[in-house]
Amino acid sequence: MPGPEVADRQLAEFIEFARHLGKVAGDVILPHFRAALDVTNKKTDSGQFDPVTIADRDAEQAIRNEISRRYPGHGIHGEEHGLKPGSERFTWVIDPIDGTRAFMLGLLHWGTLIALNDGERPIVGVMHQPYTGETFFGSRLGAEFEHGATRRPLRVRRCVRIEDAMVSATDPAMFRKGPEREAFGEIARTARLTRYGGDCYAYCMLASGLIDLVIESQNQAYDLQALMPIVEAAGGVMTTWAGGSPQDGGQSVAAGDPALHKIALEILGSGVPRL
Amino acid sequence: MPGPEVADRQLAEFIEFARHLGKVAGDVILPHFRAALDVTNKKTDSGQFDPVTIADRDAEQAIRNEISRRYPGHGIHGEEHGLKPGSERFTWVIDPIDGTRAFMLGLLHWGTLIALNDGERPIVGVMHQPYTGETFFGSRLGAEFEHGATRRPLRVRRCVRIEDAMVSATDPAMFRKGPEREAFGEIARTARLTRYGGDCYAYCMLASGLIDLVIESQNQAYDLQALMPIVEAAGGVMTTWAGGSPQDGGQSVAAGDPALHKIALEILGSGVPRL
Repeated sequence: MPGPEVADRQLAEFIEFARHLGKVAGDVILPHFRAALDVTNKKTDSGQFDPVTIADRDAEQAIRNEISRRYPGHGIHGEEHGLKPGSERFTWVIDPIDGTRAFMLGLLHWGTLIALNDGERPIVGVMHQPYTGETFFGSRLGAEFEHGATRRPLRVRRCVRIEDAMVSATDPAMFRKGPEREAFGEIARTARLTRYGGDCYAYCMLASGLIDLVIESQNQAYDLQALMPIVEAAGGVMTTWAGGSPQDGGQSVAAGDPALHKIALEILGSGVPRL
Repeated sequence: MPGPEVADRQLAEFIEFARHLGKVAGDVILPHFRAALDVTNKKTDSGQFDPVTIADRDAEQAIRNEISRRYPGHGIHGEEHGLKPGSERFTWVIDPIDGTRAFMLGLLHWGTLIALNDGERPIVGVMHQPYTGETFFGSRLGAEFEHGATRRPLRVRRCVRIEDAMVSATDPAMFRKGPEREAFGEIARTARLTRYGGDCYAYCMLASGLIDLVIESQNQAYDLQALMPIVEAAGGVMTTWAGGSPQDGGQSVAAGDPALHKIALEILGSGVPRL
């Protein structure tokens, strides 16, 4: 359901509400972080291990309640409870804990992802890490970082060669054996440094000008939609490996420098599945 | 230079001083975290990339100054400025920023490592993360976690099978191709979950009862000595892959559960270099 561009004032209201949702989720999640194990197992379609915590489910319910109260006509698409279509064109696309594996291990690279999709694309994105108290958010109005009393704009850095690039991927095993893994491997071997274990946090560091490329696969829509407005408003580019919008998930490549993105796409193109 | 066991009162004094050193280092490091690039390149003997920041060097100098003032007879062994032998049996073994790659990328799994070696083994260990304000420390007197007003004991959890284990390693590329990588790979494939990108932070999560195995290679003495008293006082076991003390670096395996450590050693034994 495409529609006219959202006015600045309404956009600002949506951003504030998205940041509020991040904090609502954080309040639910934080008591479970590093608490005694409350992990259940869920198998994905591919049979891979996908831990889900009580925190994840309860936080999504809390977010859904807030949205239904404030914007009853908006749709909601979340990891835990699926899609609830709305009567208006707007849909909130949420992942209460992106990086559940890091969360389970007590590590820090996880966060709550909140996106607002206007029927065509995500127009607001928020990543909130309640343990560190950090919030990264972006929209057409700009990308910002908030941490306590600190609030500053986010800006990617220049990096035009793979050889100079700091590369991040959540897990080397996320790439399917064959052309996909080979394409990623070519970049990983060429890059100045490749680091694993970043999840949503890595995209925020790309928007902060500290990472040059984030390359992933097997994403869901809710893994990426909140990160797109942050990366883009900071000056970066984020697409699928085939160069299209990554808002439906699958393979993703984010680059701080558009020139580097172009080079990365040339290499990653060989890893795009043939249909 | 072995000597008699250090009395509790002196040990407590050393612990307080080690925690103080962590905070001194943090004050030097923190302004450089996520600041504009001040990274120089240094090649290790093996030719691998080893970033060193101004923060790393300045923090080590600040720590050395503090130690020389307070304990002029103690030795100092640090990553950046090498070994300064002491006239007494005690040596401070320090790594101002363990996880420099994570640090460079703006990620969170890094920290300052401070150990005090009594001539036989590390008897005090501190890991301090100045950005999150967390301190993990251990000695014969116990292992504790401090975060703002929170202070609580650290305790490993029970986990007796590789199949149930959460495994951490900093980087899959740290294992040399051949028997070493194969031995790690056997555990990684069997484990419930294997996660990369932890550095010193992963050992602290093992001591917190959230990770079951941390397996690494190509360590230096200053990468491990501060972590040994934390892991051991929390109830864990930490050795080389051959089962000896890991205080000189090389291959390391830490387990929360001694029974799991024994099983891991049986598998990792095939990856021990033949001399």
